[in-house]
Amino acid sequence: MTSETETDDARDLLFSRDLDAPRDKVWRCWTEPDLMKRWFTPSPWTTVHAEADLRAGGGNTVVMRGPDGEDLVHRGVYLEVVPGERLVFTDAFRSAWEPSDKPFMTGIVTLEDAGPGRTRYTARIRHWSMADREAHEGMGFHAGWGKAAEQLETTARSI
Amino acid sequence: MTSETETDDARDLLFSRDLDAPRDKVWRCWTEPDLMKRWFTPSPWTTVHAEADLRAGGGNTVVMRGPDGEDLVHRGVYLEVVPGERLVFTDAFRSAWEPSDKPFMTGIVTLEDAGPGRTRYTARIRHWSMADREAHEGMGFHAGWGKAAEQLETTARSI
Repeated sequence: MTSETETDDARDLLFSRDLDAPRDKVWRCWTEPDLMKRWFTPSPWTTVHAEADLRAGGGNTVVMRGPDGEDLVHRGVYLEVVPGERLVFTDAFRSAWEPSDKPFMTGIVTLEDAGPGRTRYTARIRHWSMADREAHEGMGFHAGWGKAAEQLETTARSI
Repeated sequence: MTSETETDDARDLLFSRDLDAPRDKVWRCWTEPDLMKRWFTPSPWTTVHAEADLRAGGGNTVVMRGPDGEDLVHRGVYLEVVPGERLVFTDAFRSAWEPSDKPFMTGIVTLEDAGPGRTRYTARIRHWSMADREAHEGMGFHAGWGKAAEQLETTARSI
């Protein structure tokens, strides 16, 4: 398993929360398209399409729909998949290995046991520039991931 | 094995040559630091240091020294390793998964049998922008890769 570099990079955004759901169910919610659609996008936006080719080099796609019907397509590639533990993905590539129009972020999601039936859920979002990190924060990163984490917990507890 | 997208992207540079050396030896020259140092950098530059942590997410480093003693350090990460066949690496990350200062290129090297003891050696270098592709070409990409390929063939035949 690859370890991320243990630096506190100012270009990163961090989100962490303990979820009242077991690790294997949280993992399923992050990796099974039918479950991803139930929680991935903070309400009132919804996830209308999801794909997950779960392997290093495999593609992932999420289509988010806004309250006025506008669609946002997010495409990327998985860089590292450790089932139940760690998922790394980036939008630097549209597919393996086609450079995207602009590398914006790489996400490192880790799941750890946090007591019986509970999961410590951590996402480190790394950006190529401070400007991108600031823009991402300004888009409402913390509120958005918080809302999505609530939806994630609800979905994981329902399966 | 991940397949690259079959588009002819104008942001790519392509190099291909049939080498008079078998595939397993060409692979060793691309992946063993002591051998990398013997051919990687077109003369009169030399490779004074090489590291290769040969796995997806593993780091690679090459230090090139110029005729006036100036050192250029190239650091990157392997994205895909298929022994004897295919090696993908990028400078978009300094290590797994720390974004570099500037994503410049992703390299896809493929080796195929090309008759007894011979190897078709192909490198597709993908850039994030046309400007980077043009800059890379302007730096002497084709001459540089051609000279290095001669050195690669000589090294592979010597082992």
